[in-house]
Amino acid sequence: MSRWEPNARGRLEEAALALYAERGFDQTTAAEIAKRAGLTERTFFRYFTDKREVLFAGREVLQDIFTEAVTGAPATASPIEAAAAGLEATGALFAQRRDLVRQRQAIIAANPVLQERELIKLAALATALAGALRRRGVPDVTADLTAEVAMAVFRIAFDRWVQETGEPDLTELIRACLGELKRITNPEPARRKRK
Amino acid sequence: MSRWEPNARGRLEEAALALYAERGFDQTTAAEIAKRAGLTERTFFRYFTDKREVLFAGREVLQDIFTEAVTGAPATASPIEAAAAGLEATGALFAQRRDLVRQRQAIIAANPVLQERELIKLAALATALAGALRRRGVPDVTADLTAEVAMAVFRIAFDRWVQETGEPDLTELIRACLGELKRITNPEPARRKRK
Repeated sequence: MSRWEPNARGRLEEAALALYAERGFDQTTAAEIAKRAGLTERTFFRYFTDKREVLFAGREVLQDIFTEAVTGAPATASPIEAAAAGLEATGALFAQRRDLVRQRQAIIAANPVLQERELIKLAALATALAGALRRRGVPDVTADLTAEVAMAVFRIAFDRWVQETGEPDLTELIRACLGELKRITNPEPARRKRK
Repeated sequence: MSRWEPNARGRLEEAALALYAERGFDQTTAAEIAKRAGLTERTFFRYFTDKREVLFAGREVLQDIFTEAVTGAPATASPIEAAAAGLEATGALFAQRRDLVRQRQAIIAANPVLQERELIKLAALATALAGALRRRGVPDVTADLTAEVAMAVFRIAFDRWVQETGEPDLTELIRACLGELKRITNPEPARRKRK
């Protein structure tokens, strides 16, 4: 076995999610995760600082995808268009991972400490997104507000994607939520209820 | 001294904020807060469950003001208009308390555990706001998105209010942020940078 086995991270993640679901997060150890994955505890700690990190390591990848897409958006894009490009870029990242994401969300929903950690990570993502917008020359308040609003869209679209039956497309749900945001903030005089 | 002295809560809050600023939150005890306020520890615990609660008890009042204003908004108000009524109603609550709020924000900014608690409380406010919108017949996704977006406006307007010099008016800042939100989500073809 190679010291840097390409699939070790994925195997550890799958093993961890399975054990957290079976026994609960608090009752699972890093050693047990490694064993379930057929790897050593030492290998576990090459990929993750602790068992909680298995659930949150993906946020760094997400942040990179967000900020790179914002940075790469056309110079003519408005702040919300640049932020939307960031959100939509995540669709591909999650497309093949819906089952793992659902497992992860269920584990977090069952554990208040993990929920707190999730809120902190989402707040950090909003800060990173605002920073990427500032680097495009967007003024402070506009950058902060756009980033917060974009994260709200992302959270809600993501929750729908996790919960819906069938094969929902995350990017489509994000676009629908962005459209809904536009309607919400500029209600037409004749209002209709929308689902 | 009356058992339920009307001003005890305010005196305890002022004493707590002063001590947290002087010694740090972790180094202050409930007994010390009571002593500084000229009250007994027993009185402290009639008003607050612990020393952290002094910083967060106001959230319940805030939540009531939010949800009552949303509930009381005209039936013809759109979801964002109802949510805006909730936000704007808070202006009067904070108007006389800016110095205390500034002290509070500085203490929270210095303590990661308190920052986490603040995020949790803000998330709970968003959930309460979404609930008040649902009770107006607003569909789920629209209610969630409107509530999250409204809380983003509130946070950003509130931060500006805390940080600005002079005598800024919170309600005015909230209205300005709501206007900015409208511009952000519906950018005009000819874009201008705004500060």
